[in-house]
Amino acid sequence: MKEFREFELNKEYIDRFQEALDQRDREFVLASLESVNPADISALLYEFNSEESKWVLDLLEPDVHAQILKDLDSDTRKNFLRIYKVSELTGLINLLDSDDAADILNELPIKNSEEVIAGLDLQLRSQVIDLLRYDENVAGGLMAKELIKVRDHWSVVQCIQEVRSQAEHVTKFYTAYVVDDQDRLLGRISLQDLIIRDSKTLVRDILEEVVAVETFMEDREVAEVMKKYDYESVPVVNVQGILVGRITIDDVVDVITEQAEEDRQAMAGISEDVEEDDTVWRNTRARLPWLLVGVAGGLISARFMGFFEGELSRIAAISFFIPLIQATGGNVGIQSSSLVVQSLSAERYQETLRNRLARVFSVALLNGFLLALAVLAVNIFLFENDRLSGIVSVALFAVVVFASFIGTITPLILHRMGYNPALASGPFITTTNDLLGLAVYFSTVHVLL
Amino acid sequence: MKEFREFELNKEYIDRFQEALDQRDREFVLASLESVNPADISALLYEFNSEESKWVLDLLEPDVHAQILKDLDSDTRKNFLRIYKVSELTGLINLLDSDDAADILNELPIKNSEEVIAGLDLQLRSQVIDLLRYDENVAGGLMAKELIKVRDHWSVVQCIQEVRSQAEHVTKFYTAYVVDDQDRLLGRISLQDLIIRDSKTLVRDILEEVVAVETFMEDREVAEVMKKYDYESVPVVNVQGILVGRITIDDVVDVITEQAEEDRQAMAGISEDVEEDDTVWRNTRARLPWLLVGVAGGLISARFMGFFEGELSRIAAISFFIPLIQATGGNVGIQSSSLVVQSLSAERYQETLRNRLARVFSVALLNGFLLALAVLAVNIFLFENDRLSGIVSVALFAVVVFASFIGTITPLILHRMGYNPALASGPFITTTNDLLGLAVYFSTVHVLL
Repeated sequence: MKEFREFELNKEYIDRFQEALDQRDREFVLASLESVNPADISALLYEFNSEESKWVLDLLEPDVHAQILKDLDSDTRKNFLRIYKVSELTGLINLLDSDDAADILNELPIKNSEEVIAGLDLQLRSQVIDLLRYDENVAGGLMAKELIKVRDHWSVVQCIQEVRSQAEHVTKFYTAYVVDDQDRLLGRISLQDLIIRDSKTLVRDILEEVVAVETFMEDREVAEVMKKYDYESVPVVNVQGILVGRITIDDVVDVITEQAEEDRQAMAGISEDVEEDDTVWRNTRARLPWLLVGVAGGLISARFMGFFEGELSRIAAISFFIPLIQATGGNVGIQSSSLVVQSLSAERYQETLRNRLARVFSVALLNGFLLALAVLAVNIFLFENDRLSGIVSVALFAVVVFASFIGTITPLILHRMGYNPALASGPFITTTNDLLGLAVYFSTVHVLL
Repeated sequence: MKEFREFELNKEYIDRFQEALDQRDREFVLASLESVNPADISALLYEFNSEESKWVLDLLEPDVHAQILKDLDSDTRKNFLRIYKVSELTGLINLLDSDDAADILNELPIKNSEEVIAGLDLQLRSQVIDLLRYDENVAGGLMAKELIKVRDHWSVVQCIQEVRSQAEHVTKFYTAYVVDDQDRLLGRISLQDLIIRDSKTLVRDILEEVVAVETFMEDREVAEVMKKYDYESVPVVNVQGILVGRITIDDVVDVITEQAEEDRQAMAGISEDVEEDDTVWRNTRARLPWLLVGVAGGLISARFMGFFEGELSRIAAISFFIPLIQATGGNVGIQSSSLVVQSLSAERYQETLRNRLARVFSVALLNGFLLALAVLAVNIFLFENDRLSGIVSVALFAVVVFASFIGTITPLILHRMGYNPALASGPFITTTNDLLGLAVYFSTVHVLL
């Protein structure tokens, strides 16, 4: 019975492995990695430094080595590739599919990447050169050239022969794409169908419809298409409708995961792709710019409040409600923009701006009214200053309405301008919102007190 | 040439369709939906009310109708199902795979669901009863019973025959799972291999290793396994290692998408699964509880500041820096907890708490120092009160360190207790952080001024 070994990372194992690395203990390393899945080895290697990892990889079979290289995340790999010689890389990349090969080549300095390309096998070379023309975040940059292509006038038995001869170059496929004699995509036929159908049946009689994506479609949209139609792979066509590649679901899963992470980072105000276990300096650098935005906002607030120093000295209680006003404004703003971000990513039909704003205002009026009422009730009991209590509630109501509006409109504007709308929940907009809230509060106090 | 029609939702089309619905214009509806993919019809139906949608669905073929029902999102479908008669539902659910059937049955009131189950075809009935035992968010609740199972002592040609006979009941499969005579999972064999290999080869000689998940594994973990190994489907086994089902990648993509959305809602403080285009009342209800948490925090802040009324009256400038302190504390806290959430979801080996805190503190000290310095420099130029400027910088430094600690530790505690760590970036923790920041600031002022 063949089976992958249970493999779980724990402190003891990592320590033991580190020891083996320190002693360059080939036997231990080989024995402990035997029949371990390459994906598990990748996860393990994150725990060691580049030289150590490279030493381990050199002990393994070249195809396992190449597979692990493919699995590493892009940031880690970029650094890691520096310690490879061009000739080594050429050998390893020759073992990969065209899309993975292109990804790695994209991470090399131009000079090295050209040398590697020059050394690739003929077919892979031309495929890779074709793929490198595309941006990483469009369908062309996600696709692989390897696919099974059959003609519409073939019979099932001809298809099976073709599958047999093409399959050598194509890992993982579930679908053969049907094209006409000009390579224009007509549909698809599942392997399941090839197995089930009578061998004399013609492809054109059993082909299924398929939705294709065009080379320049954005990766987010490709993900939406695959999710919507539950595809495990989607064909890519050029503007003439000619089949040029296919995108498999595992690549799209990566796109979805990365985008969720990007959105989270945008919301949290982290400016580069940083991970918790990166170095102190890298972490600081990624976080500082956004903190400075907040600090700048805070200093502007301080200047602004300086204009009201007289009033504040007279009635210190005015300042008591600053946290209340700002927290509520912030929360309302983030809620509003999150809902817009969610609706933008759901790819449903987008209602008109007027309808959207009408509903947002209704929700804001209702929430603002209820909150203002609750605060008034509490304040009347707890504070002696009824006039100020009334003013706080009026300002709170205004801030809720204001923040809803800003929170709704900002992600829409960002989206229209081609930016990630999730930025609207990040520190820049939050800071603006804080300032607006303060301005609304002090204006209200100034006018009504 | 067969092809799905280009189908894009736009205002004109929706209006025209609404008109046709008002007049119950069968011809228009049928003509405009002909050869449209069911997934596109689902998207369209979100624009109309339940009765209208039901009327459209009743015009379509039952299998298309069932497919669309399957595609609807769970919230929408729950309401929508109320207008179906039990007999109708039974007929439609009979056309679905076991996992989709179980999902829909889970959304029905118990009484109806039992009636529907009683009316299902024998095989589906037993499959569905088996599936309904599992929670929705574990592997057992995600899996389908439909799969292709072959024995290890069979030859390739026997497999192909078995695939042919089983394939009738199984939509979409790419892999046959290999079991022994006790149905224990041994490995898998891809359809690709069945097509390529010589027909007399024995399954046991060509089977590939496969990682399986157990029925009680959490959906997040299932998603990690499939991502890690790039599987398009993963076999599910019970504690005895017996093959009981399989989970396909499309279901896991849904899990990943939903979880990203849940995280976002947790961060934004939205308490139920609400969408921007839900009713005003539902939107208000989903948002109000979290806003009240913030408001309560604000009122406590106000009370707290009351203790310092004397100091505030004497030096109004103390209040000027409240927004600065609070905004920075909030931003640092959210950054810290986002990084932890990200590292928890990346499923890497988790470093020890001590190492993690050591690095977090280093980053906090560095960031806190740089920010305090920047603020001091600005304040010395802009404010006359040097003493207060110094105090503000000291407090800012303390708040950055504090907020980093709270932001790091909270998601870890939530995770340990089985809650979603993303809640740590939500309003509850933010509010606590705000209060702590204020406390730190005023204590510093009180002690040093």
